[in-house]
Amino acid sequence: MPQAGEGHNNRKLAMKKNEKKLWGGRFEGSASDVTERISRSVHFDSRLYRQDIRGSIAHAKMLNKIDVLDANELDDIVVGLAQIRDEIDRGEFLFLDSREDIHMNIEAALTERIGDAGKRLHTGRSRNDQVATDVRMFIMDESAGIDSLLAKLVSVLVETAEKHIDVIMPGYTHMQVAQPVRFSHHILAYAWMLVRDRKRLADAVSSCSRLPLGSGAMAGVNYANDREFLRNELGFNSVIMNSMDAVSDRDFMLDFLYFASVLGMHLSRFCEELILWSSSEFSFIRLADSFTTGSSIMPQKRNPDVAELVRGKTGRLYGNLFSMLTVLKGLPMTYNRDMQEDKEPLFDTVDTVIISLEGVTGMVSTMTVNAQRMQTAVRSNFSTATDLADYLVRKGVPFRESHEISGGIVRYCETEEKDFFSLSADELKKFSPLIDDEIVTILDPSSAPERKISAGGTSRSSIIEQIRMLRDAVETGL
Amino acid sequence: MPQAGEGHNNRKLAMKKNEKKLWGGRFEGSASDVTERISRSVHFDSRLYRQDIRGSIAHAKMLNKIDVLDANELDDIVVGLAQIRDEIDRGEFLFLDSREDIHMNIEAALTERIGDAGKRLHTGRSRNDQVATDVRMFIMDESAGIDSLLAKLVSVLVETAEKHIDVIMPGYTHMQVAQPVRFSHHILAYAWMLVRDRKRLADAVSSCSRLPLGSGAMAGVNYANDREFLRNELGFNSVIMNSMDAVSDRDFMLDFLYFASVLGMHLSRFCEELILWSSSEFSFIRLADSFTTGSSIMPQKRNPDVAELVRGKTGRLYGNLFSMLTVLKGLPMTYNRDMQEDKEPLFDTVDTVIISLEGVTGMVSTMTVNAQRMQTAVRSNFSTATDLADYLVRKGVPFRESHEISGGIVRYCETEEKDFFSLSADELKKFSPLIDDEIVTILDPSSAPERKISAGGTSRSSIIEQIRMLRDAVETGL
Amino acid sequence: MPQAGEGHNNRKLAMKKNEKKLWGGRFEGSASDVTERISRSVHFDSRLYRQDIRGSIAHAKMLNKIDVLDANELDDIVVGLAQIRDEIDRGEFLFLDSREDIHMNIEAALTERIGDAGKRLHTGRSRNDQVATDVRMFIMDESAGIDSLLAKLVSVLVETAEKHIDVIMPGYTHMQVAQPVRFSHHILAYAWMLVRDRKRLADAVSSCSRLPLGSGAMAGVNYANDREFLRNELGFNSVIMNSMDAVSDRDFMLDFLYFASVLGMHLSRFCEELILWSSSEFSFIRLADSFTTGSSIMPQKRNPDVAELVRGKTGRLYGNLFSMLTVLKGLPMTYNRDMQEDKEPLFDTVDTVIISLEGVTGMVSTMTVNAQRMQTAVRSNFSTATDLADYLVRKGVPFRESHEISGGIVRYCETEEKDFFSLSADELKKFSPLIDDEIVTILDPSSAPERKISAGGTSRSSIIEQIRMLRDAVETGL
Amino acid sequence: MPQAGEGHNNRKLAMKKNEKKLWGGRFEGSASDVTERISRSVHFDSRLYRQDIRGSIAHAKMLNKIDVLDANELDDIVVGLAQIRDEIDRGEFLFLDSREDIHMNIEAALTERIGDAGKRLHTGRSRNDQVATDVRMFIMDESAGIDSLLAKLVSVLVETAEKHIDVIMPGYTHMQVAQPVRFSHHILAYAWMLVRDRKRLADAVSSCSRLPLGSGAMAGVNYANDREFLRNELGFNSVIMNSMDAVSDRDFMLDFLYFASVLGMHLSRFCEELILWSSSEFSFIRLADSFTTGSSIMPQKRNPDVAELVRGKTGRLYGNLFSMLTVLKGLPMTYNRDMQEDKEPLFDTVDTVIISLEGVTGMVSTMTVNAQRMQTAVRSNFSTATDLADYLVRKGVPFRESHEISGGIVRYCETEEKDFFSLSADELKKFSPLIDDEIVTILDPSSAPERKISAGGTSRSSIIEQIRMLRDAVETGL
Repeated sequence: MPQAGEGHNNRKLAMKKNEKKLWGGRFEGSASDVTERISRSVHFDSRLYRQDIRGSIAHAKMLNKIDVLDANELDDIVVGLAQIRDEIDRGEFLFLDSREDIHMNIEAALTERIGDAGKRLHTGRSRNDQVATDVRMFIMDESAGIDSLLAKLVSVLVETAEKHIDVIMPGYTHMQVAQPVRFSHHILAYAWMLVRDRKRLADAVSSCSRLPLGSGAMAGVNYANDREFLRNELGFNSVIMNSMDAVSDRDFMLDFLYFASVLGMHLSRFCEELILWSSSEFSFIRLADSFTTGSSIMPQKRNPDVAELVRGKTGRLYGNLFSMLTVLKGLPMTYNRDMQEDKEPLFDTVDTVIISLEGVTGMVSTMTVNAQRMQTAVRSNFSTATDLADYLVRKGVPFRESHEISGGIVRYCETEEKDFFSLSADELKKFSPLIDDEIVTILDPSSAPERKISAGGTSRSSIIEQIRMLRDAVETGL
Repeated sequence: MPQAGEGHNNRKLAMKKNEKKLWGGRFEGSASDVTERISRSVHFDSRLYRQDIRGSIAHAKMLNKIDVLDANELDDIVVGLAQIRDEIDRGEFLFLDSREDIHMNIEAALTERIGDAGKRLHTGRSRNDQVATDVRMFIMDESAGIDSLLAKLVSVLVETAEKHIDVIMPGYTHMQVAQPVRFSHHILAYAWMLVRDRKRLADAVSSCSRLPLGSGAMAGVNYANDREFLRNELGFNSVIMNSMDAVSDRDFMLDFLYFASVLGMHLSRFCEELILWSSSEFSFIRLADSFTTGSSIMPQKRNPDVAELVRGKTGRLYGNLFSMLTVLKGLPMTYNRDMQEDKEPLFDTVDTVIISLEGVTGMVSTMTVNAQRMQTAVRSNFSTATDLADYLVRKGVPFRESHEISGGIVRYCETEEKDFFSLSADELKKFSPLIDDEIVTILDPSSAPERKISAGGTSRSSIIEQIRMLRDAVETGL
Repeated sequence: MPQAGEGHNNRKLAMKKNEKKLWGGRFEGSASDVTERISRSVHFDSRLYRQDIRGSIAHAKMLNKIDVLDANELDDIVVGLAQIRDEIDRGEFLFLDSREDIHMNIEAALTERIGDAGKRLHTGRSRNDQVATDVRMFIMDESAGIDSLLAKLVSVLVETAEKHIDVIMPGYTHMQVAQPVRFSHHILAYAWMLVRDRKRLADAVSSCSRLPLGSGAMAGVNYANDREFLRNELGFNSVIMNSMDAVSDRDFMLDFLYFASVLGMHLSRFCEELILWSSSEFSFIRLADSFTTGSSIMPQKRNPDVAELVRGKTGRLYGNLFSMLTVLKGLPMTYNRDMQEDKEPLFDTVDTVIISLEGVTGMVSTMTVNAQRMQTAVRSNFSTATDLADYLVRKGVPFRESHEISGGIVRYCETEEKDFFSLSADELKKFSPLIDDEIVTILDPSSAPERKISAGGTSRSSIIEQIRMLRDAVETGL
Repeated sequence: MPQAGEGHNNRKLAMKKNEKKLWGGRFEGSASDVTERISRSVHFDSRLYRQDIRGSIAHAKMLNKIDVLDANELDDIVVGLAQIRDEIDRGEFLFLDSREDIHMNIEAALTERIGDAGKRLHTGRSRNDQVATDVRMFIMDESAGIDSLLAKLVSVLVETAEKHIDVIMPGYTHMQVAQPVRFSHHILAYAWMLVRDRKRLADAVSSCSRLPLGSGAMAGVNYANDREFLRNELGFNSVIMNSMDAVSDRDFMLDFLYFASVLGMHLSRFCEELILWSSSEFSFIRLADSFTTGSSIMPQKRNPDVAELVRGKTGRLYGNLFSMLTVLKGLPMTYNRDMQEDKEPLFDTVDTVIISLEGVTGMVSTMTVNAQRMQTAVRSNFSTATDLADYLVRKGVPFRESHEISGGIVRYCETEEKDFFSLSADELKKFSPLIDDEIVTILDPSSAPERKISAGGTSRSSIIEQIRMLRDAVETGL
């Protein structure tokens, strides 16, 4: 996979001074230098060129269908746009900053090449519906790749869980050891989060898949355009039936930025754990050399930089969402130029999501699991104290009372500096007449997970069932 | 409808010092005063009492089904809990701050009343899965009411559009007059936003509808509990199949807070317009006296406070979303006490959404539309300049050229200080030989909307079609 | 110290239907029920009563000074307001929801008691300048207490550092052991953050200390009021010299919310560490029983809930800041009702800051430091590898080369599974001819901190210097 | 002024595969492709090259002073670094992505050129203290330019106010006409906000001006470095006295991002007004052609795009602040790689602040003020109703009563469809026996501002006083 946005960086960009604007009819003098600089967007929105050209070709076909363009004109447009697309692909197209944005750059270049037919292309549309269409298509296009990365990471987590299904580790609440769990169970919790993320991404894509094209500047257009034809041509689910809503709606983008924020939150939690587990104190895993970096000053360091960067990138994912929510707050109808601020956070979010998923997938698929350390950790505390309480419940003690008895044993161990797991049955019997020799196996952390017989618990069969369900989810796309 | 959270405010709350904690077995001494104050939550989470009791009754039935509770115990529990619920309903139940939260308050009160059966109720569950279940149920419960309010507002917008279907107003982009549109078209753009909001709410409810109960503290429980029975009893769609995910997932809450943020954004845009339209300069509408307030110092003021407050409340809706995103960032598995911070933003968001929807619905259904002012506004500028350009296109001029011609006429009017709408056909003909007498009707703002013949445009038939579709959407719940 | 906001909760609140509004002159009919509910604020802004009354008394004195009120009227007002304040203090004052806010409640009650003089009190002011004054005073008042809590926490950190000045622990970057540091050095890093927080608080207070009172609704007032007198009376630094700015400025509140957000960030970092250090894997500290809580299900748990809650509360501090930034974005001049949304985030932030500081101070002053565990941790890795590299530099090797040699020794230890700290001088000499017997003491973690002879390093003398500087800072208020 | 970041875009960037990392001693194999891509930062942090080189030269001088470098080595380093800086200035330096960041690129290039002395340069420092120093210097450098732009905009506002000092316009609260004000008064309200912004910027710069250099990785360094020399050489105010705090503190950056957020909020409010005032309905101002743009479809449009873009850019300023707050939340000590995420939001914020200030300054200095329209607007409502009430107060009526009388007159005008400003003295006298003929001048909007005799009111003398104070503030830098 090429670096996110890599092709984009190779694009040629130049400034052609004093070119007449396409909208300049009523204006005297030229825009100030500041206006030029703050208005132009082609240095970032050129990234939409494939979508813009695809949309223009569909629009041209539709104009031909309703007899605004004849067959020759259509042909010239389609050939001309395909040429431009190929030139951009190859990094040979010269973008002009003076033409403001990607739409004007392509249209002006087309007109230079094919003449009047190029000028007719903008019939029955406006930049307002055009850009909304482009951006929706862009998200739909990128989301396909992102969804594959999500599915890939789920698969890698499932494989990791399967491989280490019998490794027992401490389960934590409040960062305190709670109960023994399977490492696989812990890992699969993240797989489930990602399954939800795929659902959220699908919802965002479904938000995108409503066609604004053909709505004009905001009131509709004076042509009996065939928007159903456009919808079908461009692969949208439905047509937006209110032209003012069509040009001013950015919900679909928020839905995507929100999906990314929640995904980022999930990944930040996982990376936090990878970082902790890589610490000298935990040593539950060892990240591969290829996913750690060193220090310019401290020779011994193996820093989990990838995990830290992914965790840190949550900041920009949240920031991008909040940025767009701020932009849209209190904006009157319909299109306002503030909305041009939507693209940079979007592009940044797409790139961040991709590199983050790649980073986490790489770390998980190359890390080493230190079962021995987890084993030690789960025995160095009171991880089965709840099992002891439950054992008494089965003997008829109300839970609240058995909880007190078990808590008393813990306090005894601490006061006497005794190891909970080394207490003999006889020592334990002093705390309740109901305790018998079976208690020793009850307290063994390695057997505890199998007693979690509830659906969704940390028993082996539950893991196998989860793996089956998650594999199904990956295959069926949910 | 009672004031949001009103009942809650009447609840009795007291402090019972030095009561032994239910989890106190291993602890010596009591919690510090600061710990008590920062930990307790019953002053806000008591709002979950109905959900907590409903969940406990279902849990008790399940425990009876798997023979942990006998029929008498179940009966005592169900009767005891129903009593407690009724007492809370009537404001007669005494909550104790010292019992920390709603769960402990109810359980302790139950045990005081019915003895050991109460102590057995907590068998096979933990506060971790209990609170997650309660909050999910709370959102599902409140969402039903919110969805009705959304549907109500869509209906009111549709009625308003229908009533004023023939009122023409200026359509704006960049707050500059763009093209004449129907007032109804403008109003319906908001109805479509709300339809999307209902979809987003339905998605959030669907996120909530996954059952955590029966997952225990985080590892599952040592009982063959019947989670499918619980699911069915409590009306959830599915059972969460990973116990660690079950207690640490708060996606469902984010989904709700996100729905509310987008809704708030939509309402802030609409309120911005209501405020502008109520200004002396626009005077497009007049809000009812009952939805405006006066000034303590300026006797003439009729302030659109409700619209301003709804617009301002977007801040807290965004703030609540970002508050929770911040809380969850980088949290390791599984439950961490940080998550207790989820409830206050949730409750505040629920109350804000309800009062905001009521406010907007009230304003719209009582406001007066000033068709005359809109009529004047649409004629006092160049709102049909695009129609002039399109007219030339139909005569064979490429759009980019006709755009220049039309722009030249605008410049002429400004230089000569002429009224665009008073230009004679003869004056216009000077700008292009293709212009003929028909041009006068082309420039008439009242006829322009009917020329927007594209699907979703501002023509009368498009409005009628939108009204039909929106009524369908209201009735079918989408 | 009483619970934040405690007194407030005891206030009596009632609804008096159909009372004529003070601004009702031009209105027919009454406000809708929704308008009443969304507009009223007395249930939260009653918290400003002391400031409101103080401001009113100063205003009355000024009106007397410029002969708008005579001596008797002034006397009636001062006595009446003092009575009202005392009644509110005692929880005996009946607030009426129908009187909207704290200002109207107090003014109306005053007029009921003293007649016409009460009606004259509002001469030459508006609620717009009045509320801005009240809120500024409120922040200034609360900030004094918050600053004391900050100073207290700095003192407790300094004492802790002093007490454990010779405890050596691993210093971390990237959560990987970096170099040995003194525990006291680590703890003092937080003290320095808090010193900056006090500066930021002082800046916020200085923002507040500009007087809006006397600006009227927004244009100034028709009276030659004496604003310098008011400034002096109320203890402000300066008078705001533009009446429109005076009523629409909320920068001072943002400054306070921002101070709180950065403080929250600092505390979240510290609490993260307290949580990690309390984990079984680190065990560097043990929080006191009085600052931990147990589990309803797991008898052994000692959860660091206070630290988790403080960390989580960062969410609401950030959320409150962003809430207000959102409210203010794009608001036209001057006062808009959106601004009423400023009070709840402010109050919540004040309460959160207070309880968080109390919580952290409590934890630090009662925790036990486990020097032995830190000692073990600092020896179980390669914490002095940098010292080895520096040692070679002093022998003439360029740093980049010595870094490579040291890194090679680390790799050797890992491959051969050798303990870095047990390597003999002879083994080490193989890696460079420049290594001699002194190397053994170089590698000793307990001696390493003393070699950090740079200013601000982790040597004992640097700690002593820091303690001196911080004590100075506490005493001088910076 | 060159385009923000323009030089940066011309930099040469290449990938040199498989180059050995400077920290690679202990690593086997090379970093994965993903790790390379997520870790590298030279494509954005190259922007720090001037600061990095300035810092390195100071560090080299200090190393010479403490005899770590001899005079020849120092000379080689200083000459080599100056060469590199000049090459970067001219766009001739080849940055290698494989060298990760700006620091490694410069150091490696230096070593290629001058040999061992280059390797010695990193003695006694780490990237951790180096990057913190660079970024602080960068903010200080950029802030000087930003402060000038702020001062420039204050001056332009003051000139605009002075030029139009006698233009009367409606003053608004709640977007409803409140009282007549001078246009100059309204404009100066923004000047005061910017004065506060300069203070906030100065505070941020003062936060930056604490020197981390010489703190090493986090524990201090094994050299008796002379940090006071570094401080003086680099122009910092003070030296950070805790090495752990030195490398992990990012408060200074937050302070800058916060300054920018509040500035953005101020500008968004002003731009909102420029947009409204440019609307056909208000027509209070006309932005210059050079600061408006046209439409690709609507020939008549003159869109206030610059104002809209500046308003919209508030989103990214808020987003950048929130992004960094999120990154830092809950990060344990000391440096974590998450912090690399600080630079892009910083650079984006710097560029956004600069272009926004330029845009607003340009708009204000070229706009036309339509005094006639403001005049009309201030007479088409009840803008002096408060003056009428105050008039009665002066005749002895308590304010609350006079407010009611004035409100009654307003209601009368509305019911009878009478123009408030055309009411005769006789008509008015019916409402109160205290009204006499003077009332006609009282109601005249053009005389009303002069009656606002309070300090900071909208009278002519108050404006002149404000202009004097603001000019002083510009000159004295506050």
